[in-house]
Amino acid sequence: MQRTELVSLYKATPADGTKVTVCGWAKTVRDSKNIGFISLSDGSCYKPVQIVFQADKLANYAEIAKCGLYTSFEVTGTLVLTPNAKQPFEINADAITVLGPCGPEYPLQKKKMGMDYLRTMTHLRPRTNTFNAAFRVRGQAAFAIHQFFHERGFTYVHTPIFTGSDCEGAGEMFQVTTMDLNDIPRTEDGAVDYTKDFFKRPVNLTVSGQLEAEAMAMALGNVYTFGPTFRAEKSYDTRHAAEFWMIEPEMAFADLNTYMDTAEAMTKYVIRYLLDNCPDELAFFNQFFDKGLIERLELVANSDFARVSYTDAIELLKQNDANFQYKVSWGMDLQTEHERYLTEQIFKKPVFVTDYPKEIKAFYMRQNEDGKTVAAADMLVPGIGELIGGSQREERLDVLLARLDELGLRREDYDWYLDLRRFGSVKHAGYGLGFERLLMYVTGIPNIRDVIPFPRTCGGF
Amino acid sequence: MQRTELVSLYKATPADGTKVTVCGWAKTVRDSKNIGFISLSDGSCYKPVQIVFQADKLANYAEIAKCGLYTSFEVTGTLVLTPNAKQPFEINADAITVLGPCGPEYPLQKKKMGMDYLRTMTHLRPRTNTFNAAFRVRGQAAFAIHQFFHERGFTYVHTPIFTGSDCEGAGEMFQVTTMDLNDIPRTEDGAVDYTKDFFKRPVNLTVSGQLEAEAMAMALGNVYTFGPTFRAEKSYDTRHAAEFWMIEPEMAFADLNTYMDTAEAMTKYVIRYLLDNCPDELAFFNQFFDKGLIERLELVANSDFARVSYTDAIELLKQNDANFQYKVSWGMDLQTEHERYLTEQIFKKPVFVTDYPKEIKAFYMRQNEDGKTVAAADMLVPGIGELIGGSQREERLDVLLARLDELGLRREDYDWYLDLRRFGSVKHAGYGLGFERLLMYVTGIPNIRDVIPFPRTCGGF
Repeated sequence: MQRTELVSLYKATPADGTKVTVCGWAKTVRDSKNIGFISLSDGSCYKPVQIVFQADKLANYAEIAKCGLYTSFEVTGTLVLTPNAKQPFEINADAITVLGPCGPEYPLQKKKMGMDYLRTMTHLRPRTNTFNAAFRVRGQAAFAIHQFFHERGFTYVHTPIFTGSDCEGAGEMFQVTTMDLNDIPRTEDGAVDYTKDFFKRPVNLTVSGQLEAEAMAMALGNVYTFGPTFRAEKSYDTRHAAEFWMIEPEMAFADLNTYMDTAEAMTKYVIRYLLDNCPDELAFFNQFFDKGLIERLELVANSDFARVSYTDAIELLKQNDANFQYKVSWGMDLQTEHERYLTEQIFKKPVFVTDYPKEIKAFYMRQNEDGKTVAAADMLVPGIGELIGGSQREERLDVLLARLDELGLRREDYDWYLDLRRFGSVKHAGYGLGFERLLMYVTGIPNIRDVIPFPRTCGGF
Repeated sequence: MQRTELVSLYKATPADGTKVTVCGWAKTVRDSKNIGFISLSDGSCYKPVQIVFQADKLANYAEIAKCGLYTSFEVTGTLVLTPNAKQPFEINADAITVLGPCGPEYPLQKKKMGMDYLRTMTHLRPRTNTFNAAFRVRGQAAFAIHQFFHERGFTYVHTPIFTGSDCEGAGEMFQVTTMDLNDIPRTEDGAVDYTKDFFKRPVNLTVSGQLEAEAMAMALGNVYTFGPTFRAEKSYDTRHAAEFWMIEPEMAFADLNTYMDTAEAMTKYVIRYLLDNCPDELAFFNQFFDKGLIERLELVANSDFARVSYTDAIELLKQNDANFQYKVSWGMDLQTEHERYLTEQIFKKPVFVTDYPKEIKAFYMRQNEDGKTVAAADMLVPGIGELIGGSQREERLDVLLARLDELGLRREDYDWYLDLRRFGSVKHAGYGLGFERLLMYVTGIPNIRDVIPFPRTCGGF
């Protein structure tokens, strides 16, 4: 008999009495003398189904009743509607076959296991309710992002992972090589002989696809990247990973407002998508990780985000200065305490802070007329603070050159990037969203290691 | 006046006489004494729009007429329906502003440029018709793949880029480090001191996410990866890149037929999606790269793929042995000439070759009852040969252990992978599709360097 996925039983439940065959893994196996229950999950949906098995129907009743957690089964039986139970139906087994046993040595037994312990077995933890929900949400959120941009005519672009080593942030980059570290080839004067390396030059892993995305936007109009990025940051906290995924949209003929409109629409779209498509997973997180989760997500999805200039935000924050660890003054970078105060206490909804001092922002951001600020904006959300950062890009060749000089950056290192301003330059804007940041926000999971299937963080894995 | 994207003019063309503002880059600027034409493109669709500008309407007529290729413009004018022309409408300009000039030093002038030359300026080549089409198709194909799996309930998973160094294929892997290559830390006995490296161990870049995808499938049922993979292969041909994107679906409760059914459906889905959504781009490739392209794609999209065992395929090929460079015998790996002969001459449509000798396939493939072959299958398509490879995985712990021993692989290196067979093992299957391989196939572009925005191949970039 053809196997039926559990998801299709839930989507269109067959009539009472229908014969079905299902496969899956036991989340629990319970039994009393003559009747037993298996909570069976097959991964096709978050919800398991209850299998009822009886001694008078199954010759192998005793064998099944003794099976451990996560034994895999094939079950043929009768679908029974259960209108008075929590679940809409159960399956009364006619036959149960063990596909793969799972004995008492299985390390994930049905007791409360710490997240630290589970991190030591990343290959098994997707089988727990928490991680199963986390990785389902991860997959759905990724699809929602692709669909959002696709519907709006953005072209998905793959920017390179391997990059030259001569750009900003080199200190926190990983180097890639095929040379034997035990025996690094040397030139006559003792330097590393990169002509012997795979690319015949030093090569690092990308920290951002933005600059390449800008090149693509100058031909394709609206583009976005969605790929892994790498930071060799020596950080042991719960918010940084060495390998993480970024979404970096870049829009031609666009200004700061275009970026903010797009980022706001994207955030609401993804959250609404998850509320609609992952109700069971979000209910789980709401119950076990963050009682205010769904309420907060609904607030974000239904708000018109506020917008306030950095200068005005500083004035607003000063009124609460006594309560901040870091005192507020114009020119400073906002700390998480300031960001959260703005979005949670003052605006009580997401807010874009715009037009930051140029000294605390990147060289490529567009200078405002005041000579002091740049057309950058960070999106702050209740619960965590900054979720997205973006800016209008400096499209004027002379202004960009002057800024490079001012910062002591070498023009020749940015030659191809400057070409984008030399040849048919147009105003454009873009932003960056750390995918794991978003996932922590929508699940309430507090540690980045727990929203990545196989996390890679400082110190080892 | 609010700018209108060209794509929306093509999707729902406004009434004759409507005033519009458009922005874009000039693909060509032509003029005679009093009338000029700009072919304007804004990236929102592949098609440009024709701008007509006249000396008696524009004070800056002479300035505009002198503008070079890829100057960016803002144009306000009147939409004029042109039912007798090739294009359905044009825009008669009332005002044209130069947004960004583009002078004679622009390296991509309107003459036939070689692909080699264009590869030296990857940041500008998306502006050409060829690369613009290639990267539009790339984005659309990626979306089609996501949508295909999403519709079928597969969860998108991100497998890690950083991997331990102790698995198969290590010889062709890139190593990642934060140590100073000029001054590698050493232990007392002179070995590389990896405790000083970022992860405190040797780390490489992944060559495949399959094994991790299998772990995810044992909890989520059906999953797929879509991410970059890396091979440090010293290959200078047109088919290999050091950095490329792979799609690796993995399905629980699935056998070889499930894989073949899914791979066939996916291939047809993507091709149909591109035929429907990128008609202009495919028409371009059909005209300039491969006159048989669209016909071949239609054939694939409309065929029921054939299936033949390796053993039968060898017998069929032997009948043509005189014409092959590599002579045919049971046990050999099929060469491209054999694969193409099978799919192009014998079956005249895509064909799965199944049940290969175990000696030429990977350790994880499921052994058949005959003791000689494994449940693997390659999908061959007319024009190139192998497009997809996949297999049912060996789910039996004892058989897998015996195979590791037989091949001299160390059990301890696969300990976590073996756990998947120790605890609730189920039959499962999966496959791998090189995304660039697919793109070369659907565009007719013969060099992998030209379907990747910023290619990274052996010898440098």
